Amino acid sequence: MTLGYIELLLAEDSPTDRELTLLALRSNKLANQIHVVEDGAEALDFLFARGAYANRQLDHPPKVILLDLKLPKIDGIEVLRQVRAHPQTAHIPVVILTSSAEERDVVESYHLGVNSYIVKPVDFEQFSQVVRQLGLYWLLLNQSPLP
Amino acid sequence: MTLGYIELLLAEDSPTDRELTLLALRSNKLANQIHVVEDGAEALDFLFARGAYANRQLDHPPKVILLDLKLPKIDGIEVLRQVRAHPQTAHIPVVILTSSAEERDVVESYHLGVNSYIVKPVDFEQFSQVVRQLGLYWLLLNQSPLP
Repeated sequence: MTLGYIELLLAEDSPTDRELTLLALRSNKLANQIHVVEDGAEALDFLFARGAYANRQLDHPPKVILLDLKLPKIDGIEVLRQVRAHPQTAHIPVVILTSSAEERDVVESYHLGVNSYIVKPVDFEQFSQVVRQLGLYWLLLNQSPLP
Repeated sequence: MTLGYIELLLAEDSPTDRELTLLALRSNKLANQIHVVEDGAEALDFLFARGAYANRQLDHPPKVILLDLKLPKIDGIEVLRQVRAHPQTAHIPVVILTSSAEERDVVESYHLGVNSYIVKPVDFEQFSQVVRQLGLYWLLLNQSPLP
């Protein structure tokens, strides 16, 4: 468990995509405090300070959540729904980062109040560029709602 | 009135900020189809195809709305509220681009479902950089909800 204030929560079950994302963020010095979870249940435990994260402080939410859609245990759509449903987490910026460009997923995500929806490029270099732009935008440019 | 499909709607009353924004977008070839309105009432007329925009097609919403907060006639917060309240416009990405870093404005914007909140840099060069990143992100990277 990370004890510092987390700036970015990454929920991603693919080891390759996880490594690529972390590499792109770190090589651009974009986030000192990243926390990674591998399924939706752990994402919710982290965000609501439950289970293994029961000791986490809730008063410093991450600046952004990067959320894959096809996660084990609880999928990304359901994570988004629960994040938006609770006052403590409702306004945290959530970016869906997924291989799915299916209209149903896009429409459902916006309906649930996602801030942004990004389709993962297949190409390695392009993927890294996208993560770099994502990080720049949400960690440096965007004004987070809290604290 | 512009007849092509508008990619970006800019609602900005300051002539200087308008010109800087357009210059930054165009010099980076980021938007061929930009429509500019100078107050909140015209923004809503455009989005809901009313008044001078009664002939506009509603089935191609802009990919993003860049919305100043302190607009004449109807302010940006009220524009955002009305955009989110109507099914036809509820999911259009809205980015607040404002000189206000007041917590009240930030909180209210997120409460109303803004996608992103950006504080305008005072410095000319930084302002141009921010608009460039904004344009790259919302016009090229983000997957819009429709059509």
